[in-house]
Amino acid sequence: MQAPAQPPENKPGDSYVQSFARGLEVIRSFSAEQPVQTLSEVAAQTGLTRAGARRILLTLQTLGYVHSDGKHFRLTARILDLGYAYLSSQPIWNLASPLMEALSEKVQESCSAGVLDGLDVVYVVRVHAHKIMSTNLGVGSRLPAFWTSMGRMLLAGLPQAQLLQLLAECPRVAYTRHTLVEDADLLRAIAQVREQGWALINQELEEGLISVAAPLINAQGQTVGAINVSGQVNRTNAQEMESRILPHLLSTAQSVSQLLRTTRQ
Amino acid sequence: MQAPAQPPENKPGDSYVQSFARGLEVIRSFSAEQPVQTLSEVAAQTGLTRAGARRILLTLQTLGYVHSDGKHFRLTARILDLGYAYLSSQPIWNLASPLMEALSEKVQESCSAGVLDGLDVVYVVRVHAHKIMSTNLGVGSRLPAFWTSMGRMLLAGLPQAQLLQLLAECPRVAYTRHTLVEDADLLRAIAQVREQGWALINQELEEGLISVAAPLINAQGQTVGAINVSGQVNRTNAQEMESRILPHLLSTAQSVSQLLRTTRQ
Repeated sequence: MQAPAQPPENKPGDSYVQSFARGLEVIRSFSAEQPVQTLSEVAAQTGLTRAGARRILLTLQTLGYVHSDGKHFRLTARILDLGYAYLSSQPIWNLASPLMEALSEKVQESCSAGVLDGLDVVYVVRVHAHKIMSTNLGVGSRLPAFWTSMGRMLLAGLPQAQLLQLLAECPRVAYTRHTLVEDADLLRAIAQVREQGWALINQELEEGLISVAAPLINAQGQTVGAINVSGQVNRTNAQEMESRILPHLLSTAQSVSQLLRTTRQ
Repeated sequence: MQAPAQPPENKPGDSYVQSFARGLEVIRSFSAEQPVQTLSEVAAQTGLTRAGARRILLTLQTLGYVHSDGKHFRLTARILDLGYAYLSSQPIWNLASPLMEALSEKVQESCSAGVLDGLDVVYVVRVHAHKIMSTNLGVGSRLPAFWTSMGRMLLAGLPQAQLLQLLAECPRVAYTRHTLVEDADLLRAIAQVREQGWALINQELEEGLISVAAPLINAQGQTVGAINVSGQVNRTNAQEMESRILPHLLSTAQSVSQLLRTTRQ
Protein backbone atom coordinates (compact mmCIF):
# COMPACT_ATOMS: atom_id res chain seq x y z
CA MET A 1 0.00 0.00 0.00
CA GLN A 2 3.02 2.26 0.41
CA ALA A 3 3.85 4.26 -2.69
CA PRO A 4 7.39 5.58 -2.33
CA ALA A 5 7.79 9.14 -3.50
CA GLN A 6 9.60 9.38 -6.80
CA PRO A 7 12.00 12.24 -7.42
CA PRO A 8 10.96 14.46 -10.33
CA GLU A 9 12.79 13.68 -13.56
CA ASN A 10 14.03 17.17 -14.34
CA LYS A 11 16.71 17.75 -11.75
CA PRO A 12 18.39 21.14 -11.72
CA GLY A 13 21.86 20.37 -13.04
CA ASP A 14 24.38 22.45 -11.13
CA SER A 15 22.48 22.70 -7.89
CA TYR A 16 21.67 19.04 -7.54
CA VAL A 17 23.89 17.08 -5.14
CA GLN A 18 23.71 13.60 -6.62
CA SER A 19 25.61 11.86 -3.82
CA PHE A 20 23.23 13.31 -1.23
CA ALA A 21 20.16 12.19 -3.17
CA ARG A 22 21.66 8.71 -3.57
CA GLY A 23 22.39 8.53 0.13
CA LEU A 24 18.76 9.25 0.96
CA GLU A 25 17.76 6.47 -1.46
CA VAL A 26 20.00 4.07 0.43
CA ILE A 27 18.19 4.92 3.69
CA ARG A 28 14.84 4.36 2.00
CA SER A 29 15.92 1.01 0.59
CA PHE A 30 15.51 -0.49 4.08
CA SER A 31 11.94 -1.67 4.74
CA ALA A 32 9.81 -4.33 6.38
CA GLU A 33 10.69 -6.61 3.48
CA GLN A 34 14.41 -5.72 3.59
CA PRO A 35 15.22 -4.82 7.22
CA VAL A 36 18.75 -6.23 6.91
CA GLN A 37 20.68 -5.94 3.66
CA THR A 38 24.06 -6.87 2.26
CA LEU A 39 26.09 -4.42 0.21
CA SER A 40 24.96 -6.16 -3.00
CA GLU A 41 21.32 -5.92 -1.99
CA VAL A 42 21.57 -2.19 -1.28
CA ALA A 43 23.31 -1.69 -4.63
CA ALA A 44 20.58 -3.65 -6.44
CA GLN A 45 17.77 -1.78 -4.61
CA THR A 46 19.15 1.67 -5.38
CA GLY A 47 20.82 1.18 -8.75
CA LEU A 48 24.17 2.26 -7.28
CA THR A 49 27.45 0.51 -8.03
CA ARG A 50 28.77 -1.69 -5.23
CA ALA A 51 31.54 0.85 -4.63
CA GLY A 52 29.04 3.70 -4.48
CA ALA A 53 26.71 1.83 -2.15
CA ARG A 54 29.66 0.90 0.05
CA ARG A 55 30.74 4.52 0.50
CA ILE A 56 27.23 5.61 1.43
CA LEU A 57 26.79 2.71 3.89
CA LEU A 58 30.15 3.38 5.53
CA THR A 59 29.26 7.07 5.85
CA LEU A 60 25.95 6.13 7.46
CA GLN A 61 27.79 3.72 9.75
CA THR A 62 30.35 6.37 10.74
CA LEU A 63 27.49 8.73 11.61
CA GLY A 64 25.73 6.01 13.64
CA TYR A 65 22.69 5.74 11.36
CA VAL A 66 23.54 2.19 10.26
CA HIS A 67 24.82 -0.81 12.17
CA SER A 68 26.87 -3.50 10.47
CA ASP A 69 28.42 -6.81 11.45
CA GLY A 70 30.77 -6.40 8.48
CA LYS A 71 28.48 -8.15 6.02
CA HIS A 72 24.91 -7.19 6.91
CA PHE A 73 23.62 -3.66 7.36
CA ARG A 74 20.56 -2.40 9.22
CA LEU A 75 19.29 1.04 10.22
CA THR A 76 19.63 2.21 13.83
CA ALA A 77 17.11 4.23 15.83
CA ARG A 78 19.28 7.30 15.23
CA ILE A 79 17.64 7.55 11.81
CA LEU A 80 14.55 8.76 13.69
CA ASP A 81 16.44 12.03 14.29
CA LEU A 82 15.67 12.94 10.69
CA GLY A 83 11.91 12.46 10.99
CA TYR A 84 12.03 14.00 14.46
CA ALA A 85 13.39 17.18 12.90
CA TYR A 86 10.12 17.44 10.99
CA LEU A 87 7.80 16.49 13.85
CA SER A 88 9.47 18.80 16.36
CA SER A 89 9.44 21.64 13.83
CA GLN A 90 5.64 21.23 13.53
CA PRO A 91 4.53 21.58 17.17
CA ILE A 92 0.85 21.30 16.21
CA TRP A 93 1.12 17.50 16.05
CA ASN A 94 2.26 17.32 19.67
CA LEU A 95 -0.59 19.57 20.68
CA ALA A 96 -3.12 17.62 18.61
CA SER A 97 -2.24 14.21 20.08
CA PRO A 98 -4.03 14.52 23.45
CA LEU A 99 -7.19 15.85 21.77
CA MET A 100 -7.11 12.98 19.30
CA GLU A 101 -6.59 10.46 22.10
CA ALA A 102 -9.62 11.83 23.92
CA LEU A 103 -11.61 11.50 20.67
CA SER A 104 -10.43 7.93 20.09
CA GLU A 105 -11.38 6.98 23.64
CA LYS A 106 -14.80 8.61 23.27
CA VAL A 107 -15.69 6.87 20.01
CA GLN A 108 -13.62 3.71 20.64
CA GLU A 109 -12.10 3.75 17.17
CA SER A 110 -8.64 4.63 15.84
CA CYS A 111 -7.88 8.24 15.02
CA SER A 112 -5.18 9.69 12.76
CA ALA A 113 -3.84 12.98 11.46
CA GLY A 114 -2.33 13.38 8.02
CA VAL A 115 -1.03 15.85 5.47
CA LEU A 116 -0.95 15.80 1.69
CA ASP A 117 2.31 14.95 -0.11
CA GLY A 118 1.70 14.84 -3.85
CA LEU A 119 -0.72 12.01 -4.53
CA ASP A 120 -0.38 10.55 -1.03
CA VAL A 121 -1.69 11.31 2.38
CA VAL A 122 1.13 10.90 4.92
CA TYR A 123 0.21 9.91 8.47
CA VAL A 124 1.74 12.22 11.09
CA VAL A 125 -0.16 11.12 14.23
CA ARG A 126 -1.68 7.71 14.94
CA VAL A 127 -3.87 6.82 17.91
CA HIS A 128 -4.91 3.17 18.02
CA ALA A 129 -8.20 2.10 19.56
CA HIS A 130 -7.89 -0.98 21.68
CA LYS A 131 -9.25 -3.39 19.15
CA ILE A 132 -7.77 -6.73 18.27
CA MET A 133 -8.16 -5.93 14.59
CA SER A 134 -5.80 -3.12 13.83
CA THR A 135 -3.99 -1.79 10.80
CA ASN A 136 -0.26 -1.60 10.28
CA LEU A 137 -0.35 2.12 9.64
CA GLY A 138 2.11 4.21 11.61
CA VAL A 139 3.61 7.69 11.53
CA GLY A 140 5.14 8.11 8.07
CA SER A 141 2.80 5.62 6.40
CA ARG A 142 1.37 6.67 3.04
CA LEU A 143 -1.95 5.93 1.38
CA PRO A 144 -3.29 7.17 -1.97
CA ALA A 145 -5.02 10.49 -1.25
CA PHE A 146 -7.90 10.12 -3.74
CA TRP A 147 -9.25 7.02 -1.95
CA THR A 148 -8.85 7.93 1.72
CA SER A 149 -11.05 10.20 3.79
CA MET A 150 -8.18 12.47 4.88
CA GLY A 151 -6.91 12.55 1.32
CA ARG A 152 -10.24 13.68 -0.15
CA MET A 153 -10.56 16.28 2.60
CA LEU A 154 -7.10 17.64 1.76
CA LEU A 155 -7.70 17.49 -2.00
CA ALA A 156 -10.96 19.43 -1.47
CA GLY A 157 -8.87 22.21 0.09
CA LEU A 158 -6.65 22.67 -2.98
CA PRO A 159 -7.12 25.29 -5.69
CA GLN A 160 -9.09 23.65 -8.52
CA ALA A 161 -6.18 23.86 -11.03
CA GLN A 162 -3.89 21.97 -8.66
CA LEU A 163 -6.57 19.37 -7.97
CA LEU A 164 -7.07 18.77 -11.70
CA GLN A 165 -3.34 18.37 -12.22
CA LEU A 166 -3.07 15.76 -9.45
CA LEU A 167 -6.12 13.99 -10.88
CA ALA A 168 -4.43 13.84 -14.29
CA GLU A 169 -1.26 12.35 -12.78
CA CYS A 170 -3.01 9.85 -10.56
CA PRO A 171 -2.94 6.17 -11.58
CA ARG A 172 -6.28 4.35 -11.15
CA VAL A 173 -6.59 1.11 -9.26
CA ALA A 174 -9.92 -0.52 -8.49
CA TYR A 175 -8.93 -1.49 -4.93
CA THR A 176 -12.44 -2.80 -4.24
CA ARG A 177 -15.75 -2.95 -6.06
CA HIS A 178 -16.63 0.39 -4.41
CA THR A 179 -13.58 2.34 -5.65
CA LEU A 180 -14.39 5.45 -7.68
CA VAL A 181 -12.10 5.47 -10.71
CA GLU A 182 -13.66 7.92 -13.20
CA ASP A 183 -12.54 11.57 -13.15
CA ALA A 184 -16.12 12.82 -13.10
CA ASP A 185 -17.05 10.63 -10.11
CA LEU A 186 -13.97 11.63 -8.15
CA LEU A 187 -14.49 15.34 -8.85
CA ARG A 188 -18.15 15.07 -7.85
CA ALA A 189 -17.19 13.33 -4.60
CA ILE A 190 -14.53 15.96 -3.82
CA ALA A 191 -16.94 18.82 -4.59
CA GLN A 192 -19.38 17.30 -2.12
CA VAL A 193 -16.62 17.06 0.50
CA ARG A 194 -15.79 20.74 -0.05
CA GLU A 195 -19.47 21.63 0.28
CA GLN A 196 -20.19 19.68 3.46
CA GLY A 197 -16.84 20.19 5.21
CA TRP A 198 -16.08 16.52 5.90
CA ALA A 199 -15.29 13.37 3.91
CA LEU A 200 -16.50 9.82 4.30
CA ILE A 201 -14.94 6.90 2.44
CA ASN A 202 -16.89 3.66 2.46
CA GLN A 203 -14.70 0.68 1.53
CA GLU A 204 -13.12 2.27 -1.53
CA LEU A 205 -9.57 1.39 -0.51
CA GLU A 206 -10.15 -1.86 1.33
CA GLU A 207 -13.23 -4.01 1.81
CA GLY A 208 -14.57 -3.51 5.31
CA LEU A 209 -12.78 -0.22 5.98
CA ILE A 210 -14.83 2.95 6.56
CA SER A 211 -13.40 6.27 7.60
CA VAL A 212 -14.51 9.84 8.06
CA ALA A 213 -12.26 12.94 8.04
CA ALA A 214 -12.46 16.60 9.00
CA PRO A 215 -10.15 19.46 8.01
CA LEU A 216 -7.52 21.33 10.04
CA ILE A 217 -7.67 24.94 8.91
CA ASN A 218 -5.02 27.56 9.66
CA ALA A 219 -5.38 31.29 10.29
CA GLN A 220 -5.16 31.94 6.53
CA GLY A 221 -8.15 29.65 5.92
CA GLN A 222 -5.99 26.98 4.27
CA THR A 223 -6.58 23.26 4.88
CA VAL A 224 -3.15 22.23 6.15
CA GLY A 225 -4.02 18.80 7.51
CA ALA A 226 -6.88 16.47 8.33
CA ILE A 227 -7.85 14.12 11.11
CA ASN A 228 -9.96 11.03 10.70
CA VAL A 229 -11.65 8.20 12.56
CA SER A 230 -11.64 4.81 10.91
CA GLY A 231 -13.76 1.77 11.64
CA GLN A 232 -14.62 -1.68 10.36
CA VAL A 233 -17.96 -2.58 8.76
CA ASN A 234 -18.37 -5.49 11.13
CA ARG A 235 -18.58 -2.99 13.99
CA THR A 236 -20.04 0.09 12.34
CA ASN A 237 -21.52 1.41 9.09
CA ALA A 238 -21.53 4.67 7.16
CA GLN A 239 -24.73 5.86 8.79
CA GLU A 240 -23.45 5.25 12.30
CA MET A 241 -20.15 6.92 11.42
CA GLU A 242 -22.08 10.01 10.35
CA SER A 243 -24.54 10.12 13.23
CA ARG A 244 -22.45 8.90 16.17
CA ILE A 245 -18.82 9.74 15.30
CA LEU A 246 -18.84 12.73 12.94
CA PRO A 247 -20.07 15.32 15.49
CA HIS A 248 -17.21 14.45 17.88
CA LEU A 249 -14.71 14.42 15.01
CA LEU A 250 -15.78 17.86 13.77
CA SER A 251 -15.56 19.25 17.27
CA THR A 252 -12.02 17.86 17.77
CA ALA A 253 -10.92 19.16 14.35
CA GLN A 254 -12.17 22.60 15.30
CA SER A 255 -10.25 22.49 18.58
CA VAL A 256 -7.04 21.48 16.80
CA SER A 257 -7.59 24.19 14.17
CA GLN A 258 -8.04 26.67 17.00
CA LEU A 259 -4.67 25.62 18.46
CA LEU A 260 -3.15 25.93 15.01
CA ARG A 261 -4.32 29.56 14.80
CA THR A 262 -3.21 30.55 18.27
CA THR A 263 0.21 28.89 18.58
CA ARG A 264 3.35 29.73 16.67
CA GLN A 265 3.82 27.15 13.89
CA MET B 1 16.89 17.96 26.82
CA GLN B 2 17.70 16.71 23.34
CA ALA B 3 21.34 15.88 22.79
CA PRO B 4 21.98 15.67 19.05
CA ALA B 5 24.25 12.83 18.06
CA GLN B 6 27.72 14.02 17.15
CA PRO B 7 29.59 12.29 14.35
CA PRO B 8 32.83 10.69 15.51
CA GLU B 9 35.91 12.77 14.82
CA ASN B 10 37.91 10.15 12.98
CA LYS B 11 36.10 9.81 9.69
CA PRO B 12 37.40 7.18 7.28
CA GLY B 13 38.93 9.29 4.54
CA ASP B 14 38.22 7.67 1.18
CA SER B 15 34.95 6.03 2.10
CA TYR B 16 33.34 9.08 3.68
CA VAL B 17 30.86 10.96 1.49
CA GLN B 18 31.13 14.47 2.91
CA SER B 19 28.29 15.95 0.86
CA PHE B 20 25.93 13.25 2.09
CA ALA B 21 26.89 13.81 5.72
CA ARG B 22 26.41 17.56 5.28
CA GLY B 23 23.03 17.02 3.71
CA LEU B 24 21.88 15.05 6.74
CA GLU B 25 23.11 17.88 8.97
CA VAL B 26 20.95 20.30 7.00
CA ILE B 27 17.88 18.14 7.67
CA ARG B 28 18.74 18.06 11.37
CA SER B 29 19.19 21.82 11.54
CA PHE B 30 15.38 22.19 11.44
CA SER B 31 13.83 22.01 14.92
CA ALA B 32 11.13 23.36 17.18
CA GLU B 33 13.29 26.47 17.63
CA GLN B 34 14.05 26.78 13.90
CA PRO B 35 11.08 25.30 12.02
CA VAL B 36 11.50 27.76 9.14
CA GLN B 37 14.95 28.91 8.05
CA THR B 38 16.53 31.14 5.47
CA LEU B 39 19.53 30.04 3.45
CA SER B 40 21.81 32.08 5.73
CA GLU B 41 20.35 30.49 8.84
CA VAL B 42 20.89 26.97 7.50
CA ALA B 43 24.46 27.88 6.56
CA ALA B 44 25.08 29.28 10.06
CA GLN B 45 23.50 26.26 11.78
CA THR B 46 25.53 23.71 9.82
CA GLY B 47 28.80 25.51 9.20
CA LEU B 48 28.32 25.19 5.43
CA THR B 49 29.01 27.99 2.99
CA ARG B 50 25.92 29.71 1.59
CA ALA B 51 26.60 28.09 -1.79
CA GLY B 52 26.94 24.66 -0.19
CA ALA B 53 23.78 25.08 1.90
CA ARG B 54 21.93 26.30 -1.18
CA ARG B 55 22.83 23.21 -3.21
CA ILE B 56 21.69 20.88 -0.40
CA LEU B 57 18.43 22.79 0.12
CA LEU B 58 17.64 22.80 -3.61
CA THR B 59 18.34 19.07 -3.77
CA LEU B 60 16.00 18.50 -0.82
CA GLN B 61 13.41 20.71 -2.51
CA THR B 62 13.73 18.82 -5.81
CA LEU B 63 13.18 15.56 -3.94
CA GLY B 64 10.15 16.99 -2.12
CA TYR B 65 11.70 16.89 1.38
CA VAL B 66 11.77 20.68 1.73
CA HIS B 67 9.25 23.34 0.81
CA SER B 68 10.34 26.86 -0.02
CA ASP B 69 8.64 30.14 -0.89
CA GLY B 70 11.93 31.24 -2.48
CA LYS B 71 13.33 32.73 0.72
CA HIS B 72 12.20 30.53 3.61
CA PHE B 73 12.68 26.79 3.83
CA ARG B 74 10.81 24.23 5.91
CA LEU B 75 10.75 20.42 6.00
CA THR B 76 7.78 18.56 4.49
CA ALA B 77 6.13 15.43 5.86
CA ARG B 78 7.99 13.43 3.21
CA ILE B 79 11.00 13.54 5.53
CA LEU B 80 9.10 11.00 7.67
CA ASP B 81 9.86 8.43 4.93
CA LEU B 82 13.38 8.25 6.34
CA GLY B 83 12.31 7.46 9.90
CA TYR B 84 9.58 5.23 8.52
CA ALA B 85 12.27 3.14 6.85
CA TYR B 86 13.61 2.36 10.34
CA LEU B 87 10.27 1.78 12.04
CA SER B 88 8.94 -0.46 9.27
CA SER B 89 12.20 -2.41 9.22
CA GLN B 90 11.73 -3.16 12.94
CA PRO B 91 8.27 -4.77 13.01
CA ILE B 92 8.48 -5.40 16.75
CA TRP B 93 7.45 -1.80 17.47
CA ASN B 94 4.21 -2.21 15.53
CA LEU B 95 3.51 -5.42 17.42
CA ALA B 96 4.40 -3.89 20.78
CA SER B 97 2.10 -0.85 20.44
CA PRO B 98 -1.25 -2.57 21.19
CA LEU B 99 0.23 -4.33 24.23
CA MET B 100 1.65 -1.04 25.49
CA GLU B 101 -1.69 0.70 24.92
CA ALA B 102 -3.45 -1.95 26.98
CA LEU B 103 -0.86 -1.44 29.74
CA SER B 104 -1.26 2.34 29.65
CA GLU B 105 -5.02 2.01 29.90
CA LYS B 106 -4.73 -0.44 32.79
CA VAL B 107 -2.38 1.69 34.88
CA GLN B 108 -3.63 5.07 33.56
CA GLU B 109 -0.12 6.38 33.00
CA SER B 110 1.96 7.00 29.86
CA CYS B 111 4.00 4.14 28.46
CA SER B 112 7.01 4.24 26.12
CA ALA B 113 9.50 1.98 24.38
CA GLY B 114 13.09 2.95 23.74
CA VAL B 115 16.46 1.76 22.53
CA LEU B 116 19.99 2.79 23.40
CA ASP B 117 21.94 5.03 21.02
CA GLY B 118 25.29 5.91 22.54
CA LEU B 119 24.62 7.93 25.69
CA ASP B 120 20.95 8.48 24.87
CA VAL B 121 17.79 6.49 25.05
CA VAL B 122 15.76 7.10 21.88
CA TYR B 123 11.98 6.81 22.10
CA VAL B 124 10.53 4.50 19.44
CA VAL B 125 6.93 4.12 20.71
CA ARG B 126 4.93 6.58 22.81
CA VAL B 127 1.52 5.95 24.35
CA HIS B 128 0.09 8.93 26.21
CA ALA B 129 -2.24 8.50 29.14
CA HIS B 130 -5.13 10.90 29.14
CA LYS B 131 -3.71 13.32 31.65
CA ILE B 132 -3.71 17.05 31.31
CA MET B 133 -0.09 17.14 32.37
CA SER B 134 1.87 15.53 29.61
CA THR B 135 5.42 15.63 28.33
CA ASN B 136 6.58 16.75 24.92
CA LEU B 137 8.35 13.47 24.26
CA GLY B 138 7.56 11.82 20.95
CA VAL B 139 8.98 9.13 18.70
CA GLY B 140 12.60 10.08 18.02
CA SER B 141 12.99 12.07 21.25
CA ARG B 142 16.24 11.54 23.15
CA LEU B 143 17.00 11.59 26.86
CA PRO B 144 20.28 10.89 28.66
CA ALA B 145 20.38 7.14 29.27
CA PHE B 146 22.11 7.22 32.67
CA TRP B 147 19.24 9.19 34.26
CA THR B 148 16.17 7.54 32.74
CA SER B 149 14.59 4.24 33.74
CA MET B 150 14.76 2.78 30.21
CA GLY B 151 18.33 4.01 29.89
CA ARG B 152 19.51 2.32 33.10
CA MET B 153 17.72 -0.86 32.07
CA LEU B 154 19.50 -0.82 28.69
CA LEU B 155 22.86 0.08 30.23
CA ALA B 156 22.46 -2.82 32.66
CA GLY B 157 22.22 -5.12 29.64
CA LEU B 158 25.59 -4.06 28.20
CA PRO B 159 28.89 -5.91 28.67
CA GLN B 160 30.70 -4.30 31.62
CA ALA B 161 33.56 -2.95 29.47
CA GLN B 162 31.15 -1.11 27.21
CA LEU B 163 29.22 0.25 30.20
CA LEU B 164 32.42 1.61 31.74
CA GLN B 165 33.41 3.25 28.48
CA LEU B 166 30.04 5.03 28.19
CA LEU B 167 30.31 6.07 31.83
CA ALA B 168 33.73 7.60 31.14
CA GLU B 169 32.35 9.56 28.16
CA CYS B 170 29.20 10.74 29.88
CA PRO B 171 28.98 14.38 30.97
CA ARG B 172 27.47 14.92 34.43
CA VAL B 173 24.61 17.29 35.05
CA ALA B 174 22.82 17.55 38.39
CA TYR B 175 19.38 17.83 36.83
CA THR B 176 17.74 17.77 40.25
CA ARG B 177 18.85 17.34 43.88
CA HIS B 178 18.21 13.59 43.42
CA THR B 179 20.49 13.07 40.40
CA LEU B 180 23.24 10.49 40.89
CA VAL B 181 26.46 11.95 39.51
CA GLU B 182 29.31 9.87 40.96
CA ASP B 183 30.60 6.87 39.01
CA ALA B 184 30.36 4.61 42.03
CA ASP B 185 26.74 5.55 42.72
CA LEU B 186 25.73 5.09 39.09
CA LEU B 187 27.47 1.71 38.84
CA ARG B 188 25.85 0.55 42.07
CA ALA B 189 22.41 1.61 40.80
CA ILE B 190 22.96 -0.16 37.48
CA ALA B 191 24.20 -3.33 39.19
CA GLN B 192 21.00 -3.33 41.24
CA VAL B 193 18.93 -2.93 38.06
CA ARG B 194 20.76 -5.89 36.50
CA GLU B 195 20.12 -7.94 39.64
CA GLN B 196 16.41 -7.19 40.02
CA GLY B 197 15.50 -7.06 36.31
CA TRP B 198 13.81 -3.66 36.35
CA ALA B 199 14.78 -0.02 36.88
CA LEU B 200 13.10 2.76 38.81
CA ILE B 201 14.15 6.40 38.53
CA ASN B 202 12.80 8.75 41.16
CA GLN B 203 13.06 12.41 40.09
CA GLU B 204 16.70 12.21 38.96
CA LEU B 205 16.05 13.87 35.59
CA GLU B 206 13.20 16.18 36.50
CA GLU B 207 11.57 17.09 39.79
CA GLY B 208 8.26 15.30 40.08
CA LEU B 209 8.95 12.68 37.41
CA ILE B 210 9.09 9.00 38.39
CA SER B 211 9.40 6.13 35.96
CA VAL B 212 9.92 2.40 36.00
CA ALA B 213 11.29 0.28 33.14
CA ALA B 214 11.53 -3.39 32.17
CA PRO B 215 13.74 -5.04 29.54
CA LEU B 216 12.88 -6.45 26.11
CA ILE B 217 15.04 -9.51 25.63
CA ASN B 218 15.62 -11.27 22.31
CA ALA B 219 16.17 -14.97 21.57
CA GLN B 220 19.91 -14.54 22.14
CA GLY B 221 19.27 -13.19 25.66
CA GLN B 222 20.31 -9.66 24.70
CA THR B 223 18.46 -6.60 26.03
CA VAL B 224 17.50 -4.92 22.76
CA GLY B 225 15.00 -2.40 24.09
CA ALA B 226 13.03 -1.36 27.14
CA ILE B 227 9.52 -0.23 27.95
CA ASN B 228 8.57 2.06 30.79
CA VAL B 229 5.67 3.63 32.60
CA SER B 230 6.13 7.16 33.85
CA GLY B 231 4.15 9.11 36.41
CA GLN B 232 4.11 12.32 38.40
CA VAL B 233 4.77 12.51 42.14
CA ASN B 234 1.56 14.44 42.66
CA ARG B 235 -0.34 11.34 41.53
CA THR B 236 1.93 8.50 42.55
CA ASN B 237 5.13 7.65 44.39
CA ALA B 238 7.98 5.16 44.07
CA GLN B 239 6.33 2.66 46.36
CA GLU B 240 3.05 2.72 44.46
CA MET B 241 4.94 2.45 41.18
CA GLU B 242 6.60 -0.70 42.47
CA SER B 243 3.54 -2.32 44.02
CA ARG B 244 0.76 -1.29 41.64
CA ILE B 245 2.42 -0.72 38.25
CA LEU B 246 5.58 -2.85 38.12
CA PRO B 247 3.82 -6.27 37.98
CA HIS B 248 1.78 -5.19 34.94
CA LEU B 249 4.86 -3.64 33.32
CA LEU B 250 6.94 -6.81 33.77
CA SER B 251 4.13 -8.90 32.34
CA THR B 252 3.82 -6.65 29.27
CA ALA B 253 7.60 -6.61 28.76
CA GLN B 254 7.60 -10.41 28.83
CA SER B 255 4.82 -10.56 26.24
CA VAL B 256 6.68 -8.17 23.95
CA SER B 257 9.91 -10.14 24.45
CA GLN B 258 7.99 -13.28 23.53
CA LEU B 259 6.84 -11.65 20.27
CA LEU B 260 10.42 -10.59 19.64
CA ARG B 261 11.57 -14.19 19.88
CA THR B 262 8.83 -15.69 17.75
CA THR B 263 8.55 -13.19 14.88
CA ARG B 264 11.09 -12.50 12.17
CA GLN B 265 12.95 -9.31 13.06
